[in-house]
Amino acid sequence: MIEHRTLRVALLGAGSVGSQVARLLLDNTDELSERAGARLELAGIAVRDVNAPRDVELPQELLTTDAHELIVGADIVIELMGGIEPARTHIIEALQSGADVVTGNKALLASHGAEIFDAADQVGASVSYEASVAAAIPILRPLKDSLAGDHVRRIFGIVNGTTNYILDRMDREGADFDEVLADAQALGYAEADPTADVEGHDAAQKAAILASLAFHTNVPLEAVHCEGIASIDAAAIENAKNAGYVIKLLATCEQLPGEGADGEAISVRVYPALVDREHPLASVRGGNNAVYVEAAAAGPLMFYGAGAGGRETASAILGDVVSAARRHIAGGVGIGESARGDRPVAPIGRITTRYQITLDVADKQGVLATVANILSDGGVSIARLEQTIAEDETGANRARLVIGTHRAREQALSDTVENLAASDVVVRVVTVLRVEGE
Amino acid sequence: MIEHRTLRVALLGAGSVGSQVARLLLDNTDELSERAGARLELAGIAVRDVNAPRDVELPQELLTTDAHELIVGADIVIELMGGIEPARTHIIEALQSGADVVTGNKALLASHGAEIFDAADQVGASVSYEASVAAAIPILRPLKDSLAGDHVRRIFGIVNGTTNYILDRMDREGADFDEVLADAQALGYAEADPTADVEGHDAAQKAAILASLAFHTNVPLEAVHCEGIASIDAAAIENAKNAGYVIKLLATCEQLPGEGADGEAISVRVYPALVDREHPLASVRGGNNAVYVEAAAAGPLMFYGAGAGGRETASAILGDVVSAARRHIAGGVGIGESARGDRPVAPIGRITTRYQITLDVADKQGVLATVANILSDGGVSIARLEQTIAEDETGANRARLVIGTHRAREQALSDTVENLAASDVVVRVVTVLRVEGE
Repeated sequence: MIEHRTLRVALLGAGSVGSQVARLLLDNTDELSERAGARLELAGIAVRDVNAPRDVELPQELLTTDAHELIVGADIVIELMGGIEPARTHIIEALQSGADVVTGNKALLASHGAEIFDAADQVGASVSYEASVAAAIPILRPLKDSLAGDHVRRIFGIVNGTTNYILDRMDREGADFDEVLADAQALGYAEADPTADVEGHDAAQKAAILASLAFHTNVPLEAVHCEGIASIDAAAIENAKNAGYVIKLLATCEQLPGEGADGEAISVRVYPALVDREHPLASVRGGNNAVYVEAAAAGPLMFYGAGAGGRETASAILGDVVSAARRHIAGGVGIGESARGDRPVAPIGRITTRYQITLDVADKQGVLATVANILSDGGVSIARLEQTIAEDETGANRARLVIGTHRAREQALSDTVENLAASDVVVRVVTVLRVEGE
Repeated sequence: MIEHRTLRVALLGAGSVGSQVARLLLDNTDELSERAGARLELAGIAVRDVNAPRDVELPQELLTTDAHELIVGADIVIELMGGIEPARTHIIEALQSGADVVTGNKALLASHGAEIFDAADQVGASVSYEASVAAAIPILRPLKDSLAGDHVRRIFGIVNGTTNYILDRMDREGADFDEVLADAQALGYAEADPTADVEGHDAAQKAAILASLAFHTNVPLEAVHCEGIASIDAAAIENAKNAGYVIKLLATCEQLPGEGADGEAISVRVYPALVDREHPLASVRGGNNAVYVEAAAAGPLMFYGAGAGGRETASAILGDVVSAARRHIAGGVGIGESARGDRPVAPIGRITTRYQITLDVADKQGVLATVANILSDGGVSIARLEQTIAEDETGANRARLVIGTHRAREQALSDTVENLAASDVVVRVVTVLRVEGE
């Protein structure tokens, strides 16, 4: 076995991921050390309460409430506390004391990434964060290293397991949102407060991280357009199915076609979108994640796996730890991430895609012509139209139009939808969904 | 832009991949240099004939027939000549002169990998070879780095685009092997001499590379069990379909369950196998590749994309070039690959899987009982059995049995198949296919 020296590893946090990281580090020390080229010694685990119950058994003597003491003198610091503070302060402290940092803290990176990368670059330390997006799936390292010689054009990702679980069950069972959410909560697939998942905030953080890496820029979290899935009901899923689609919550990062000063603009957005049922993303089931990457030379690539889970996420953390150890041993300074540009992030109105508009309309003559005129006036071209008659809750006839458009600019589309909503032949705009992955 | 220094890049070979690498290096120099942290200068391109026609236009002044002169003084050498010699000699020369090497030469790595890694480690240089397996798909770096903290248990890969194209068309069109192969050759999907693809040798080289990385060992090419797809006909595809399977040529790398001295044994094998139509690998179409990895903590992961193509492969080469440049600039020595172990590779008889046996049998009383007895005597348990009666070429009735087995040891299975073949109730053993991916 190669063992040039010992590296002291400090672990901050012993929740579902942290406790698994500790367990795997302790159980597989020899194997991991051999791969790292250095003895990896777990120096201690900082927790809020040394007596709190843990998912897995950890040696009591490693637990401490003094994160500061643990960080000083560590070669590698693993931050798995989550949240902004004190995680941010601890990471900066670790970097300034010369340690390499491994973290899975997407909220922190999406909001304070630039500050952390700057701090790392100033001392020539590294920050690795593979676990922050899509758990065990290697996606950040492929983007940063494997595709370093290519030009990423688009990323579509299913990066939130909870919402994929919900949408997948709605799709397969025809069940309604609230029903499946309640079930998902009971089964532990969704949190008691599902807001961050259901409203797309978790996916938006991941989108900011993916876009920043893929486009070599800093995408502030505020620039990510974000819509959740709470508006998706069984009828929307059924409409999608009838048109050959499945609804997925997608994180999309896209280089917009160049025009003048906006030539370098990118779009970063999260919303429930229609995906062709033949697309590889369509078959991503349950709580799994998948990220579809289109690069200029490589063409389309897909990365698929578990999107959550303590052990799964610990795999990504430990991959980063071994890599950081190798770097630490090798010495030298790599190219940092603070050398990123600042590409403009375009507002959602600038994107171009196809749409599916579902309208409840009055059941009378001339409705179709009026709707078609409003779309045509708005510069939105109809690719496909289906009209159905159904009974509404009161037993009255209700006419429903499902309109598939050709590609349109979002701004033109949303103006047109406003005009549709204001028209007296339209009873209600039921859903407006974008089509992605084409 | 960060430009600490200039790195001289030597390119050996200007075939379909080499010419694309040259073109992308020349067209995107600024962008690639910024990412690498050093100016990447294409110092020259060694070719056999400077006047030969090329896929893409290259500056005549960069072409040379003197590879040796080009290698001396280069910081990074890209080897894309293919074949064993003179590629091997050039790579060793490049490493000994302190250059980092990037290659896509699977035949060379599968046969002389250990020698090349030793040469690299002796001088602290790196050898990168992402392009050697599954073209643009990042799979080697994820195995080496992202999963460095995990424990790979199994890999199933569709790593040969030509055979996947053929099998996919046979599956979709019901066409026969020869017919689709001729078509694939006319379309350029298969070579004039398709032996290396069709007989599985190309996939076997990739399997050796994958298994060596995943299991931190040296797998000699001779240890890879290899069967091609020439025996797969329309009837075999049809039988597979009826049982809910698709036939794929799989490269399988597996850690065998430990027992005594064999506890550390692995199996590395290539053959056409039955894959459940619901498995993510089943939907890999045309010339695409996909590698399914099961790791202890990460669970199942899948990597998908184009398995061939000049530009696609060039993407992987350039990713390695940028990473090698970063390493070159950073200084320091990484952990090499020569520290690999030598895990025993078990003979094919040691594996355990499920099988589908197709037999033409005599159309008379007692056949089923006889067949069932032979299987039972051999320790092979029947999970599923289907008997059909069809007319053979002469118009006579022909009874066919399709038997799905429970998991069995390959040795027991093949002994049993021999006994079946020798039995007077069995007219012919039509196919014996393994079921993988369960």
